[in-house]
Amino acid sequence: MAKAKKYRLAQIVERFGGEIIGDPQTPISQVATLQSAGAQDISFLSHGKYRAQLAGTGAGAVILARADSGLTQLPRIVCADPYLYFAKVSSLLNPPQAISPGVHRSAVIERGTRVPASVCVGAGAYIGRGVKLGKAVVIGAGCCIGDGVEIGAASRLHARVTIYAGCRLGQRALVHAGAVIGADGFGIALEEGSWRKIPQIGRVLIGDDVEIGANTCIDRGALDDTVVEDGVKLDNLIQIGHNVRIGAHTAIAGCTGIAGSTRIGKHCMIGGAANIVGHLDIADRVVIHAAAVVTKSIRKAGSYSGHPAEDSRSWAQHVVLLRHMDSLRERLRSLEKSLSTREKKA
Amino acid sequence: MAKAKKYRLAQIVERFGGEIIGDPQTPISQVATLQSAGAQDISFLSHGKYRAQLAGTGAGAVILARADSGLTQLPRIVCADPYLYFAKVSSLLNPPQAISPGVHRSAVIERGTRVPASVCVGAGAYIGRGVKLGKAVVIGAGCCIGDGVEIGAASRLHARVTIYAGCRLGQRALVHAGAVIGADGFGIALEEGSWRKIPQIGRVLIGDDVEIGANTCIDRGALDDTVVEDGVKLDNLIQIGHNVRIGAHTAIAGCTGIAGSTRIGKHCMIGGAANIVGHLDIADRVVIHAAAVVTKSIRKAGSYSGHPAEDSRSWAQHVVLLRHMDSLRERLRSLEKSLSTREKKA
Amino acid sequence: MAKAKKYRLAQIVERFGGEIIGDPQTPISQVATLQSAGAQDISFLSHGKYRAQLAGTGAGAVILARADSGLTQLPRIVCADPYLYFAKVSSLLNPPQAISPGVHRSAVIERGTRVPASVCVGAGAYIGRGVKLGKAVVIGAGCCIGDGVEIGAASRLHARVTIYAGCRLGQRALVHAGAVIGADGFGIALEEGSWRKIPQIGRVLIGDDVEIGANTCIDRGALDDTVVEDGVKLDNLIQIGHNVRIGAHTAIAGCTGIAGSTRIGKHCMIGGAANIVGHLDIADRVVIHAAAVVTKSIRKAGSYSGHPAEDSRSWAQHVVLLRHMDSLRERLRSLEKSLSTREKKA
Repeated sequence: MAKAKKYRLAQIVERFGGEIIGDPQTPISQVATLQSAGAQDISFLSHGKYRAQLAGTGAGAVILARADSGLTQLPRIVCADPYLYFAKVSSLLNPPQAISPGVHRSAVIERGTRVPASVCVGAGAYIGRGVKLGKAVVIGAGCCIGDGVEIGAASRLHARVTIYAGCRLGQRALVHAGAVIGADGFGIALEEGSWRKIPQIGRVLIGDDVEIGANTCIDRGALDDTVVEDGVKLDNLIQIGHNVRIGAHTAIAGCTGIAGSTRIGKHCMIGGAANIVGHLDIADRVVIHAAAVVTKSIRKAGSYSGHPAEDSRSWAQHVVLLRHMDSLRERLRSLEKSLSTREKKA
Repeated sequence: MAKAKKYRLAQIVERFGGEIIGDPQTPISQVATLQSAGAQDISFLSHGKYRAQLAGTGAGAVILARADSGLTQLPRIVCADPYLYFAKVSSLLNPPQAISPGVHRSAVIERGTRVPASVCVGAGAYIGRGVKLGKAVVIGAGCCIGDGVEIGAASRLHARVTIYAGCRLGQRALVHAGAVIGADGFGIALEEGSWRKIPQIGRVLIGDDVEIGANTCIDRGALDDTVVEDGVKLDNLIQIGHNVRIGAHTAIAGCTGIAGSTRIGKHCMIGGAANIVGHLDIADRVVIHAAAVVTKSIRKAGSYSGHPAEDSRSWAQHVVLLRHMDSLRERLRSLEKSLSTREKKA
Repeated sequence: MAKAKKYRLAQIVERFGGEIIGDPQTPISQVATLQSAGAQDISFLSHGKYRAQLAGTGAGAVILARADSGLTQLPRIVCADPYLYFAKVSSLLNPPQAISPGVHRSAVIERGTRVPASVCVGAGAYIGRGVKLGKAVVIGAGCCIGDGVEIGAASRLHARVTIYAGCRLGQRALVHAGAVIGADGFGIALEEGSWRKIPQIGRVLIGDDVEIGANTCIDRGALDDTVVEDGVKLDNLIQIGHNVRIGAHTAIAGCTGIAGSTRIGKHCMIGGAANIVGHLDIADRVVIHAAAVVTKSIRKAGSYSGHPAEDSRSWAQHVVLLRHMDSLRERLRSLEKSLSTREKKA
């Protein structure tokens, strides 16, 4: 991480809005949690459960909501959304590392690929033929970029990313180490008991402002393309099957798998280790909780959980019911007994 | 993808059989979905749900089953299995990229390894000592091949594949980027509260015609070998534990984990994100659905689902029952009430 | 694997204790399973289910518990914990491969990094600025080590490991191919429907004697550090979110995901494909079974299973109850019927 510059509270509020209570000259050089903050750090309170930590914090200043503004005497910024405000301050204090443009002497660039002067290509990277790189792109050490790939301006690939031939990445992408974009989809057909491979001739098309986590895989399409729209955020170790489409501004947590030809809407949030089977349609603004197994299309915005996934409230009820099933069985048994006793009497 | 050659319908039927209805001279240069096909594309109908798309397709020709042959007036090939037929046509139109034999100047080949003239070794690849490579093998950029590895003829490794020392890959393997073959199995023994590593001295032995997906891991055996038989197809991000054996022509979808010493039969199909615990036996021709958690051996061909996995039909019933459990509880409650009312009366 | 040296039973018992029954001069050069052992191999019996194999084994000697010592006439070592004893013998017979110190000519070492003479840096590895390497560290081919990373003595990184800037690895670490340590945590904040990235400025701090499996990912902290304590063993394809803390001597099997800010206790055992949501506390000595979905903190040592996870015994009961729910429904139906019949009679 680059060394953080110093700002005054007043300078921060000038940029991002909000109201200062306390000394506007308070110097801030870094963000920190309430627990570990020091005198030049700014911290934040975005969740009630951390209120107790506010009393003991060593922070120089705190970001909090109007309702909590009386909970501390420290210099503070009062704003509508402390978590978002903190995110902005952190971005200000921790800008992306500066690029050192140039191609490392150990990198290999094939014929027909022009590397703009503003681009940085790391040690041992391999870039195939006819690759188009936007301005200020960073290709990390050990990356392998296939023939004809296009990468938009200001995109950054960390070490050892692989992009197969023909795939496209938009502007300002951030791709973490080990990610594989454009490997063959899992397309096979049965032929007398053995599997025949189906050539995967689609591409992967990725929009602008997409983040892709470490060791995540996005397969190329079988015939048409696999599409990841603008602003999508993917965590680590995610599997995106061939011909999947992920709508704009959807966020997916780690270890999730999305099988082939499924379409995910825009503004969805998908929890970790979720599994969505193939050929489904998931509407916009759907929330899928961690480890949910989605086996049917979801046509309505809302929150879904469980195995198989259903409305989160129903799932919670079913879990409770299951846990009380032994008492149901007991009640049934006693009913049977009392009935049989009566019958005998009768 | 290499540029596709052009074929006439008649030439296709000559190779793969089937019957032409319409102009046998119709030129075909690529395969495509019904929705996106153009005049020189051939498409296919293999699933009833796409029938509606047949009417509006711009395809030059269509592959379909006898029963569907009247649904279009386009030139068409009628055959028994349209999906398999399409797979064959796609392979014809999209042959694997031609190899450019030779060792890239940046690749490193250790002493004692001979690279046949027909082999292609990509930029920055590392090949250890005593490695045996068959004819026309392709080692992608950035691959690391350990000492004593053997790779059969016509096998292709995409970028950044790692194969640990001593492992063997058969002929015509296709291994995708980031796959790791032969890392240590997870073998540890408790010694007064801490873990002692057990050396993993087995190998990974992989048969012919095996495909291995991106970032998939196959661990070496603890004592004996881990074995993947001929024709097995593995998707991305799969974990195969030490001493697992996977029977011939089994296909496994992404994100699945198979724990140590489990034996999977031949011709099985295992859905995505399934989890199979260790030391189990799974019979031949078992189908395991997505996200199933298999905790006991499966002795009988059939279809299995759920957590824990059971016969798919039973699982489906149990899911339905669980979802109606509140109504069961209501019925129980009303029985109790009516009985207690009667007792009071009595 | 290096060629194994030969030992006599007497020499083994001298090192590790236990009692010999039979010829103490029996020569041993390798460990093997009962099924595949030959005359110079020592095998072991640690589980009742393999007793049948003992009769037919071709092993030269066997390690077993006092209670089983009469089950064979072979030369044998009797000890308290045959599995641990076997682990020790295997380590003796299969020491880690000897290091060939030196920096491969194709490796890149940035300015400000000093490589000790005892260190081995493989082909194509990249090591950033200001990296601190302990004695006898092995950096495998194609590894990428970020600026300012610290790696303790005798740690070994297999091929293609990535460690991001500023992270620390203790002594005697073993890291398998494709692992990614220190990628950004999944920290994003909603801003008018789109996601704003939160800089991840914490590090990953890893203790001594930690093993990290192939393609496993450990994210750097958002503000504070992600911490993996001494003696932790991580299998393949595991995801450790930002600011997670894993207590000493905890072992985690493959495909498991642990979401951000969760704290796992010491001496825990976590089964494969488990999923633990964020911000939880898991006590010491907790056992979490394969595929469990942990949605609440676990305050008590014990064994947990299921989706959502609960005490393993309860989960097992609930699974049984669910499977008998149709019979419950039948009993309920017949009660209703008999009651209604009686009412009609009445």
